[in-house]
Amino acid sequence: MGDPVTIALDAMGGDHGPSVVIPAAAIALVRHPNMRFIMVGDRDQIAAELKNHPDLAAKSEIVHSDIAIAMDAKPSQALRNGRWKSSMWLAIQAVRDGQADSVVSAGNTGALMAMAKFCLKTIKGIDRPAIAAIWPTVDAECIVLDVGANVGADTRQLVEFALMGGAMARALLGMDKPSIGLLNIGVEEVKGVEQIREAAALLKSAPLPIRYHGFIEGNDIGHGTVDVVVTDGYTGNIALKTAEGTAKQIAQYLRAAMSQSILSRLGAVLAQGAFQALKEKMDPRQLNGGIFLGLNGIVVKSHGGTDATGFASAIDLAYEMASSGVVKRLGDDIAQYHDKLELDGAA
Amino acid sequence: MGDPVTIALDAMGGDHGPSVVIPAAAIALVRHPNMRFIMVGDRDQIAAELKNHPDLAAKSEIVHSDIAIAMDAKPSQALRNGRWKSSMWLAIQAVRDGQADSVVSAGNTGALMAMAKFCLKTIKGIDRPAIAAIWPTVDAECIVLDVGANVGADTRQLVEFALMGGAMARALLGMDKPSIGLLNIGVEEVKGVEQIREAAALLKSAPLPIRYHGFIEGNDIGHGTVDVVVTDGYTGNIALKTAEGTAKQIAQYLRAAMSQSILSRLGAVLAQGAFQALKEKMDPRQLNGGIFLGLNGIVVKSHGGTDATGFASAIDLAYEMASSGVVKRLGDDIAQYHDKLELDGAA
Repeated sequence: MGDPVTIALDAMGGDHGPSVVIPAAAIALVRHPNMRFIMVGDRDQIAAELKNHPDLAAKSEIVHSDIAIAMDAKPSQALRNGRWKSSMWLAIQAVRDGQADSVVSAGNTGALMAMAKFCLKTIKGIDRPAIAAIWPTVDAECIVLDVGANVGADTRQLVEFALMGGAMARALLGMDKPSIGLLNIGVEEVKGVEQIREAAALLKSAPLPIRYHGFIEGNDIGHGTVDVVVTDGYTGNIALKTAEGTAKQIAQYLRAAMSQSILSRLGAVLAQGAFQALKEKMDPRQLNGGIFLGLNGIVVKSHGGTDATGFASAIDLAYEMASSGVVKRLGDDIAQYHDKLELDGAA
Repeated sequence: MGDPVTIALDAMGGDHGPSVVIPAAAIALVRHPNMRFIMVGDRDQIAAELKNHPDLAAKSEIVHSDIAIAMDAKPSQALRNGRWKSSMWLAIQAVRDGQADSVVSAGNTGALMAMAKFCLKTIKGIDRPAIAAIWPTVDAECIVLDVGANVGADTRQLVEFALMGGAMARALLGMDKPSIGLLNIGVEEVKGVEQIREAAALLKSAPLPIRYHGFIEGNDIGHGTVDVVVTDGYTGNIALKTAEGTAKQIAQYLRAAMSQSILSRLGAVLAQGAFQALKEKMDPRQLNGGIFLGLNGIVVKSHGGTDATGFASAIDLAYEMASSGVVKRLGDDIAQYHDKLELDGAA
């Protein structure tokens, strides 16, 4: 069963608040019985939901907060109104103070990143945190970062993303030397913008515990060409959402195709087990959660509009991040390798 | 049947040359019997292939060229070695000289763009040509540009892409006022990089025959939220390839799911008509072709590795671009609206 892992939950985050967060925790607890929770938010609302889940209630501590960060709050607003006291802040603070191993919030990304940076601080040496996503590939999964913490990335940040993504793959996916590719618009060395070419030159000779693969293109992500895909937050976010949109679109085609004739409807009934497996594989809720990397603590961001199944996936991720020792690996790798990267001259 | 439309084909372009290009033309000719072809390349190889297609031979003129541009040639090399004489150049030249209405090549993109710019020249007033792709949506299709002519785009170029994409939608999709969205990482006005925010401000008040929708995200492309998606060539290329990769990945999941049990295999047999329709909908060969916009003539770039079915789609596209009068529409719209855009102060 393993050592207990404590997850702090921003119970008021997301479009639905406690009515999704608490049932999600109940789902996740069944899968990982050694979890404990710190539920932060309106005490009455949380307690009312917990009444339906006595097993969960026994493993949960409620921390009251009157203040919930609005889904459309600007980061600066959120910090001004919510620092020290909002459910989002107090959940993050539980990680900072060592009461929780990781925190999950479905609150708005900008506010969550601003508060997480302010509260947990960026790991010494790292310029900017990144958001990493776990991306399903044909055979397994890969890690893609940054998917939206920043609107761009310079050479130094790209190399640091490679270092952090590599550490995450080493801890979470149990790889010694994960392969790393830089997302670009062609595989030739002359292609792409300057900071990507410079990052490539640095990574090729960098003394990191990774295998630098070279440039990869958009179609290589889902193909599983590399274990870690490094890109700037603008491009990574658009790639991620484009892939989600494409999967949804194909699911709609499939439904339409399977209902077009009596034979195809009959075929669909016979193959419903297979369709169920496919549906699960394509279900974005199964891989719900962006991981903030580069902070002194693990923060998992869930989609704001997700349901309990989706939020439970984000909790699973926070559990795996905590129990696989990603933060320690990240810290160790940064301490051991960051100084050896020749980032001083990098733009 | 309509007026004859003449397509110039770079018969030596792509991974397979005449053995794909000629059969592709035969396929396209069946669909559009009013097509004529100018086949540029090695006379003997082309003539040998045409022997198998007498109907096509009757509609084809061969223009001999000894020189084929290598698939890995750099644009500067291609221009130095291939200008005035390569199959790629002579095919483009047929458009410049009014002998052909449009040209199709599966040769390398950089070389094709460099030669097309040199030979056809950019339309007066337009800063940079773009490559437009036709992207399938849930209900129809949309136009996405730039998907790789440039590695970035400034404010002025983004606004010009909107003007050009709008003209293409007006001519090709027969819309009066197509809706246009700027691809971004969030729909709020404060999001994204500076040139995108500036382009948004200009487009909002621009006297163009479009409906400016606002920012859209990656998942909106396939959802069909807008008729024209404007983005820089780096992001557009990665989005396009990510979507192609995702579609391929899901097709693999689907095949695996449908063969996992006797029942699902039986279901797949019953539903094979539906699967065939789905396969065609998801087949990237059905929408093969990047359209160079902003030049004094139509150039369609086919995937280099495609087969005759795919290359025939690119020929269809060149036919539709020519017969729907896109170049005239583009020229007229630029003449009428470009001066009214306040691009002087734009970065």
